[in-house]
Amino acid sequence: MNLILLDPNDIGADHHVRITDARRLKHLMEVNRATEGESFNVGIQGGNMGKAELIELSHEQAIFSLGQLEELPPPPLPVHLVLALPRPRMLARTLEHVTALGVKQITLLHTKRVEKSYWQSPELRPDKIHQHLLLGLEQARDTQLPTITLSKGFRPFIEVQLPALLNERRGLVAHPGMPNPCPRGISDETLLLVGPEGGFIGWEVEQLLAAGCEGMHLGPRILRVETAVTALLSRLF
Amino acid sequence: MNLILLDPNDIGADHHVRITDARRLKHLMEVNRATEGESFNVGIQGGNMGKAELIELSHEQAIFSLGQLEELPPPPLPVHLVLALPRPRMLARTLEHVTALGVKQITLLHTKRVEKSYWQSPELRPDKIHQHLLLGLEQARDTQLPTITLSKGFRPFIEVQLPALLNERRGLVAHPGMPNPCPRGISDETLLLVGPEGGFIGWEVEQLLAAGCEGMHLGPRILRVETAVTALLSRLF
Repeated sequence: MNLILLDPNDIGADHHVRITDARRLKHLMEVNRATEGESFNVGIQGGNMGKAELIELSHEQAIFSLGQLEELPPPPLPVHLVLALPRPRMLARTLEHVTALGVKQITLLHTKRVEKSYWQSPELRPDKIHQHLLLGLEQARDTQLPTITLSKGFRPFIEVQLPALLNERRGLVAHPGMPNPCPRGISDETLLLVGPEGGFIGWEVEQLLAAGCEGMHLGPRILRVETAVTALLSRLF
Repeated sequence: MNLILLDPNDIGADHHVRITDARRLKHLMEVNRATEGESFNVGIQGGNMGKAELIELSHEQAIFSLGQLEELPPPPLPVHLVLALPRPRMLARTLEHVTALGVKQITLLHTKRVEKSYWQSPELRPDKIHQHLLLGLEQARDTQLPTITLSKGFRPFIEVQLPALLNERRGLVAHPGMPNPCPRGISDETLLLVGPEGGFIGWEVEQLLAAGCEGMHLGPRILRVETAVTALLSRLF
């Protein structure tokens, strides 16, 4: 927890803010071994960051006095990530990684090789997803929550959503065996599409290329989705 | 399991090879739903890769008939990774990530902010480490095991090991706040040093720079060790 993320509604007129959730109270007490008077990095969800002084800490609540919050959050990556829905545990970790890396738009997509049961996983409940996004922001010291969209049909995605997404973005499909390597250090607004374990099927790749995406690969090694996504984002931007 | 990794000692004169460990038998039966006559990607530890035909599968053993093994494993990354020992679960995942990415030399280092108890973790037992390296190779389709060295003292590392490691390598220390960004797409033989959660302390960074390493950073975001290492390797090479 490198940043304490605050809900704008929790800030009182006296610039005091109260945290009551067990997870963060425990972290403050057991990991930070926080003491009253200590200064912490805080940020307002969707807003600025700065310092706050801890003025009270108990098992029920932590009260902070906010200083000036004049620091902007770090810049986002210029990417909309379209990720074939990974298996639930991989999804959880991947959401934390990509949020920490600065992705702000994520579409989870159904493809042929996504197991249908994954769409019923409790990891897809909005509160569970929200929790992973918060952990990513707390890790990276960021205040801007990503937006998550669920696309449960590949064909409607190709026909309806994809043309709109490609309207002002460069489309890049990561797929083994494509002729071109992943570009490095680009600054284009990008739509990055990553397949499931086992990859997109040939027909899906054809549809994506026909819609105007460029294919590219990360080399001969087959990576797990969470490794591949981090590697792609770091190489691209 | 994208590759079945075989011990050279397991290969009989008739080019038959037998697997008896429960983990892989279970994977063949439950994930691959393998049937006799099917062809699988195999590789000899430290050697070539190719195809093998499954000729018998039971709960006790799988017997394969090896074809020609003429495919070379993918090229390694030109890097020796020096990683401040992460907490045990993070270590396990990080070993799998970096092995899959092609790192062949790994030194686990003690630094000020590494908790001493981590050195007592069962995750550091040679058989546990070996298991994570195998999983990384099976994932990436590679046959070359990384070498792991444990360096339990920072000062002996700086005084004895580091000068030898830097003899024919470019030293790069990843540390927040360094003036230069992480280089992109290099092909130099590199010694990459990555600190623990919380980072190297100032004195440690000074020692590394004084020994001839270059400092560099990955940007304003604070990343977990496993995310940072993947991001660094992917950007560098």
